[in-house]
Amino acid sequence: MLTLYYAPGTCALASHLALEYSGAPYEAKRLDFKTEQQRAPEYLKINPKGRVPALATDRGVLTETPALLQYIAQSFPQAQLAPLDDAFLLAKVNEFNSYLCATVHVAHAHKGRGYRWVDEADAASQEAMKKKVPQTMAECFTLIEEKFLKGPWVLGERFSTSDLYLYTIARWLEGDGVAVKRYPKVEDHLKRMDAQPQVQKVLAAHQAG
Amino acid sequence: MLTLYYAPGTCALASHLALEYSGAPYEAKRLDFKTEQQRAPEYLKINPKGRVPALATDRGVLTETPALLQYIAQSFPQAQLAPLDDAFLLAKVNEFNSYLCATVHVAHAHKGRGYRWVDEADAASQEAMKKKVPQTMAECFTLIEEKFLKGPWVLGERFSTSDLYLYTIARWLEGDGVAVKRYPKVEDHLKRMDAQPQVQKVLAAHQAG
Repeated sequence: MLTLYYAPGTCALASHLALEYSGAPYEAKRLDFKTEQQRAPEYLKINPKGRVPALATDRGVLTETPALLQYIAQSFPQAQLAPLDDAFLLAKVNEFNSYLCATVHVAHAHKGRGYRWVDEADAASQEAMKKKVPQTMAECFTLIEEKFLKGPWVLGERFSTSDLYLYTIARWLEGDGVAVKRYPKVEDHLKRMDAQPQVQKVLAAHQAG
Repeated sequence: MLTLYYAPGTCALASHLALEYSGAPYEAKRLDFKTEQQRAPEYLKINPKGRVPALATDRGVLTETPALLQYIAQSFPQAQLAPLDDAFLLAKVNEFNSYLCATVHVAHAHKGRGYRWVDEADAASQEAMKKKVPQTMAECFTLIEEKFLKGPWVLGERFSTSDLYLYTIARWLEGDGVAVKRYPKVEDHLKRMDAQPQVQKVLAAHQAG
């Protein structure tokens, strides 16, 4: 049995969607970020990074979205969530997922989590970081729109974990001060994903109590 | 034939080492960051992100270190650079590599590339970022030392791409104001890697000309 630790509004949505699409039995445990449950001693025993997602498996805990996405795709190959039989295409999936993880998510994090990279008391620098987020996110999504998202899915006709992860992060755009309509392929992708029953089911769970 | 685009002192060292360990024929092309070759139009056609590493293959270009490392390991399985037959262990490699890429490398980048996340003219905020780098890098390496690096290699007895990537980033520690000797396992790992002939060969090429 797999147990996913998540919080609503975070990148853990991508892994939650992958589990839902995989058809595997799983349990999703919500952490309350308002009471900082992700920093509580009992959770730090599960994930010493104090972040989500974390996936508890029979063999131990896994973290980091790109790692979880490939693990779920490999563990439940019948769901066809990644091109497992083609090292080049799988690298394309991992390239896209790494870019979301290390560049796009990081750009977004400078809006609300600037304290990670400057003194916590330095409000001016954190405000300066926040101010640049619309620009950096727009630059990232220009590259995604023009170079990486083939359409309708990231790889083209083939659906993959990259679509779950892109959807997760593209949902942050408007809140980051970037109009989705600037990116027609991304906008179309968001709409296609919104219409998927697995997405609706997982989001309903995130929005419930 | 594979062609790796790299610059000395960057994270591209990890992929360069993976190619060397793989035994595959490859060419390594050096970019001159001082003249901003990574932003020249001819390179942006290869990698529109304007970064290294990039790996040109017969089927197209791949970027992002974690993706390149797995691609090289999968393409040349006889080199045994990743536990390809074990989805959980492979996820452990990808978890570690994702952490280096999205957290540790990002922490380091705030020393010299703060302009990515604040206005280029805002020297005060960039200085504030730089000042915190010894603390964030030390926190990352405390986690690596205590939780992730099993020793002697990252996975324990089994060598993997995570060792190439850890070596690449651990070499930045002293320059980031963190004494390697605070982390005995990391220090031992650096020494073991320094002694490998493949490492010496690639570093000699980086240091030449």
